[in-house]
Amino acid sequence: MGSIVIKAAVLGATGYTGTLLSRLLHRHPEVEVVALTSQSHAGQGVQEVFPEQRIPGAYVPFRVEDADGWDVVFVCYPHREAQDVVPGLLDAGCRVIDLSADFRLKDPGAYPIWYGMEHTAPHLLEAAVYGLPEVHRTAIREADLVANPGCFPTGALLGMLPLLERDSVSRVIVDSKSGVSGAGRRATAKTHFCNVHENFQAYAEIGHRHTAEMSQEATEVCGNEVTVVFTPHLLPVQRGILTTLYLDMTDPSGTGSTARELDRLYRERYRDEPFAEVVGHAPSLREVQGTNVCRICVRVDETAHVVKVITVIDNLIKGASGQAVQNMNIMFDLPEITGLEELA
Amino acid sequence: MGSIVIKAAVLGATGYTGTLLSRLLHRHPEVEVVALTSQSHAGQGVQEVFPEQRIPGAYVPFRVEDADGWDVVFVCYPHREAQDVVPGLLDAGCRVIDLSADFRLKDPGAYPIWYGMEHTAPHLLEAAVYGLPEVHRTAIREADLVANPGCFPTGALLGMLPLLERDSVSRVIVDSKSGVSGAGRRATAKTHFCNVHENFQAYAEIGHRHTAEMSQEATEVCGNEVTVVFTPHLLPVQRGILTTLYLDMTDPSGTGSTARELDRLYRERYRDEPFAEVVGHAPSLREVQGTNVCRICVRVDETAHVVKVITVIDNLIKGASGQAVQNMNIMFDLPEITGLEELA
Amino acid sequence: MGSIVIKAAVLGATGYTGTLLSRLLHRHPEVEVVALTSQSHAGQGVQEVFPEQRIPGAYVPFRVEDADGWDVVFVCYPHREAQDVVPGLLDAGCRVIDLSADFRLKDPGAYPIWYGMEHTAPHLLEAAVYGLPEVHRTAIREADLVANPGCFPTGALLGMLPLLERDSVSRVIVDSKSGVSGAGRRATAKTHFCNVHENFQAYAEIGHRHTAEMSQEATEVCGNEVTVVFTPHLLPVQRGILTTLYLDMTDPSGTGSTARELDRLYRERYRDEPFAEVVGHAPSLREVQGTNVCRICVRVDETAHVVKVITVIDNLIKGASGQAVQNMNIMFDLPEITGLEELA
Amino acid sequence: MGSIVIKAAVLGATGYTGTLLSRLLHRHPEVEVVALTSQSHAGQGVQEVFPEQRIPGAYVPFRVEDADGWDVVFVCYPHREAQDVVPGLLDAGCRVIDLSADFRLKDPGAYPIWYGMEHTAPHLLEAAVYGLPEVHRTAIREADLVANPGCFPTGALLGMLPLLERDSVSRVIVDSKSGVSGAGRRATAKTHFCNVHENFQAYAEIGHRHTAEMSQEATEVCGNEVTVVFTPHLLPVQRGILTTLYLDMTDPSGTGSTARELDRLYRERYRDEPFAEVVGHAPSLREVQGTNVCRICVRVDETAHVVKVITVIDNLIKGASGQAVQNMNIMFDLPEITGLEELA
Repeated sequence: MGSIVIKAAVLGATGYTGTLLSRLLHRHPEVEVVALTSQSHAGQGVQEVFPEQRIPGAYVPFRVEDADGWDVVFVCYPHREAQDVVPGLLDAGCRVIDLSADFRLKDPGAYPIWYGMEHTAPHLLEAAVYGLPEVHRTAIREADLVANPGCFPTGALLGMLPLLERDSVSRVIVDSKSGVSGAGRRATAKTHFCNVHENFQAYAEIGHRHTAEMSQEATEVCGNEVTVVFTPHLLPVQRGILTTLYLDMTDPSGTGSTARELDRLYRERYRDEPFAEVVGHAPSLREVQGTNVCRICVRVDETAHVVKVITVIDNLIKGASGQAVQNMNIMFDLPEITGLEELA
Repeated sequence: MGSIVIKAAVLGATGYTGTLLSRLLHRHPEVEVVALTSQSHAGQGVQEVFPEQRIPGAYVPFRVEDADGWDVVFVCYPHREAQDVVPGLLDAGCRVIDLSADFRLKDPGAYPIWYGMEHTAPHLLEAAVYGLPEVHRTAIREADLVANPGCFPTGALLGMLPLLERDSVSRVIVDSKSGVSGAGRRATAKTHFCNVHENFQAYAEIGHRHTAEMSQEATEVCGNEVTVVFTPHLLPVQRGILTTLYLDMTDPSGTGSTARELDRLYRERYRDEPFAEVVGHAPSLREVQGTNVCRICVRVDETAHVVKVITVIDNLIKGASGQAVQNMNIMFDLPEITGLEELA
Repeated sequence: MGSIVIKAAVLGATGYTGTLLSRLLHRHPEVEVVALTSQSHAGQGVQEVFPEQRIPGAYVPFRVEDADGWDVVFVCYPHREAQDVVPGLLDAGCRVIDLSADFRLKDPGAYPIWYGMEHTAPHLLEAAVYGLPEVHRTAIREADLVANPGCFPTGALLGMLPLLERDSVSRVIVDSKSGVSGAGRRATAKTHFCNVHENFQAYAEIGHRHTAEMSQEATEVCGNEVTVVFTPHLLPVQRGILTTLYLDMTDPSGTGSTARELDRLYRERYRDEPFAEVVGHAPSLREVQGTNVCRICVRVDETAHVVKVITVIDNLIKGASGQAVQNMNIMFDLPEITGLEELA
Repeated sequence: MGSIVIKAAVLGATGYTGTLLSRLLHRHPEVEVVALTSQSHAGQGVQEVFPEQRIPGAYVPFRVEDADGWDVVFVCYPHREAQDVVPGLLDAGCRVIDLSADFRLKDPGAYPIWYGMEHTAPHLLEAAVYGLPEVHRTAIREADLVANPGCFPTGALLGMLPLLERDSVSRVIVDSKSGVSGAGRRATAKTHFCNVHENFQAYAEIGHRHTAEMSQEATEVCGNEVTVVFTPHLLPVQRGILTTLYLDMTDPSGTGSTARELDRLYRERYRDEPFAEVVGHAPSLREVQGTNVCRICVRVDETAHVVKVITVIDNLIKGASGQAVQNMNIMFDLPEITGLEELA
């Protein structure tokens, strides 16, 4: 396999996901990083801009004519902006992993509702594959365009997947707590140290956009309409998302499962997954920070007939850049853990 | 009113609730602090033990014979230990505000189930009043023994009270996030800085003892059995609890309320309450830290027919010492906010 | 004294010092807050802008013609901007407490060197009084214009004052560590949570502007030229400054003092000061957060003949707004602690 | 080199340095971990005790008879305890890297002064090599017993080394700020989250034991007596030490160096060092956390004739476990960065 070298570019390489992706790709044994693009920092060296980064190279402006010869492009633009460059990249023959939300919703009518504008490349939505390997591995392998999942949906969906596949889940309450890096590198009142430190708060208490992704995928897997009730909160930590799920079944036999049965169901489902680990204790962010792993714990409240699941991920890795690399590995027939083993 | 001076003692005055209570009582205009007791620090000055405290006095050992002449005693012992001293204090003619869990559950059969031992003073359970002023104000006024509520139940119950009183709530999911001071002053692996900082975790994921209090009170107010599903989490902050509630109604007309109707319901219910404030935004811990206030925001997920409520309190104040002072004010016919106004 | 009511205005009332000052003045028993001005938030209610503030009123734009009838004006503008409004306020008959750096340096030639522009009101520099009560109390009483000290100089000067008065100090190394609120409310890369949390860094390692204030005051008190070497660092906390001082004497007899002699010297010097407390242990930020107190500990390294002093203050209170209120109290012949007692 | 496999044991493998060392050795390509010993956790699996660790194996009790066949032993015991096992390990033919303070001071008379007891193996002090590779690389290569430096001395000495070698430094003020992991895994009042978070404090303000190490090494390198004045402080962060140094020269020509000359001196001195990096900005903890790198910035206060140096290290890596691995690499003729490259 020594002869495979994937030429990879990162568009928008100076945000949190972009910088982390740059480092993951730099140390990936089968990848050559051919371009790190940035509008604001074009011409500057990576270490000049980020003294804590330890990778060579400099930022360049993005020009679509350079894309010729790139094997894979990671698009780290904000939603609404990614859809403008993706068609050109596909035309240039690149395979694309888009980390924005632009190609996650399959229903062309849904985008304007959740993102407030008409999609400019709706013809690509059908072919785009939702890049959650634990669900769509086969389709990802062949995809030209992978829509990398949102950070919250990643942790939430992995927490409900085994039950969705087995039972008729009617409703899931998704109570998520995320570190500040999820809000991006931009300095705002929301990310000011004095507003976050020794503080805690919910936000987008009704109608957070990730709800749509979760509903779409949960419903597709389950076969019946799954209602998702989602509340994100902002933790005074940098990295990590912990999600507490509360699942109701249409068929109460599901909630009749004992704790032991559910634990076994989850362990069997994820036995061969390299990045989903079922544990017997309430997992903490610490256990997954710096890794591509999602840890999952399933409990049942036998009095209330509710299944409780807790999942933890590193929002920047399994929730973004690491999952993107995992998707690339699948697309290029590499072992899925390549370049992701040593993360700790 | 200048002639009223309440002689108050604090038993177990060196824990977090005890030290805060000492300070609140010290600055209370109608209180004379007659004893601060401590086993481990008896004989030492308050400022010697806690350089950040700015109150006079020294710790003394507790002897029940000293209780003669005390008007009110705040018991800040751990559960299981409080029940041993409360009967003697009542016999000595003191009114007692117990901050432990020992007298909160009315059902004598419940204590062994949740606390793992037979209660040693079960005959007092019936007369003890659950000290949530927003529910039991009248009874508190006459009570000789007030069981000060747990920190989690305080924030949870205030978040569901208006709906419990109006509708048939069938189930409440209570997802709470608490600062570390809730775990007490004892140094343990759980409270080690390196285990908490940049971390987040659920604990007691099934069967936390505060579930019993919440069920008891919710069911009593609502009139039908209310199932409580409770998950506490440990935040990397010192002070504050944020609780996110998800309420289901047996009668779906309740969940059919619009956001505006619910907001009005809550505002009306709490209009005359000095320490419950209904707000129109998702409240943060910052807004209530250092105060006796509970801030509450009510939302409805109209798609899912679920009412979402978010409450924030300072766990050491409204969740413990401040509520204890509020109860004392009620018991001694003082304006309820006396000694609690300037908290900020 | 019930008849004294000071009409006070705060210009630039929405920054950290401005909001805190607003609250201090609101609860001050002898003050009527007549105006809180803001460019950006004019017309909005205080609680609307800052849900955690618990004071009434709304922001208004500043117009100098309104100043007629104001007894005292607190100017919370950035340096360079304060000097533009102060002359007009004095002309209107107000007494002014300027919290910017504009009137702290007495030497008209120094301002351009340290602040990069010509001073626009240099004629006021001589009459302006440096508002450190522990040094200039008498002059403050009569002053029309008080230049409230910088946060770093406050903690540093109080740490060296007794030695400066007694000995010939030749050089002071001032190693300061400040919380993030010292950087102000503006959201920048420097104040982004992810750049501060679990991090620590020096800044302005050579030539921080507060060096000039410290040298000016130390030299004036000592009578000989005192060289100040200053390094500020940014702590991942919100509130507080800890300063570690290392003092060399020209006359080595000073450093020959024993620890006990120095402790006595400091305690005697500050015996009657309401807000300077000498302690026998290494003080922590916690001990002074939320108060107007400076705690001071003096040590001597007898091997190295160096005096080590550690001081802690709350940068927003004794380092800014609280000291401004203390200065107002002096100017209006009130007991110095009025409105500052209950801070905790 | 594929045939070299170093059989390594870690004694006291469950503390912070021990667990990190276990992980570093586990991923080291030339090492086989033959024993991880623990008193308290013998018989338990590593992942069972530490769910966030991702290495196989279980803890065993230490028995010196097992040491036969171990090539190198890392002793992670507290000082006073290490000296009891080291002689036996050397007798068994092991090479020893001791991470305690027991073999750092060369003067047999110094140990009782600083550590309060007679040394039980003083005959080994002379042969023990102080394991700072940047100074003692040649001696480390041949050593049977390496005394791994303290965390504070590592950052301090690397900051002064180039000047010590060139000039007659008379005194160094060492103002250090350390993360909490430096205080170890034991839960104490000092490490309780609520005592550290939003707080900051000096400790051992006079006479911290690391002063002795710094003086010994600085004096040896410089050739004249170097006085060290040291103050450690406790930061509310987990990992990292930032040290601010202030150096005085006996020969003032040294302090007469320009900033540019000093920068060049430092860059030349460290050009070939794999883990000492001279930078042109004030380095932050973030830049070195998770790495074995020491970053160094040199400045001169030309007015005060003082050289200011700022260094940052990860206290658990370059300050302990990483430096121990670096020493092992030197002792076994491996490239110095083996197993330490990917740290980030």
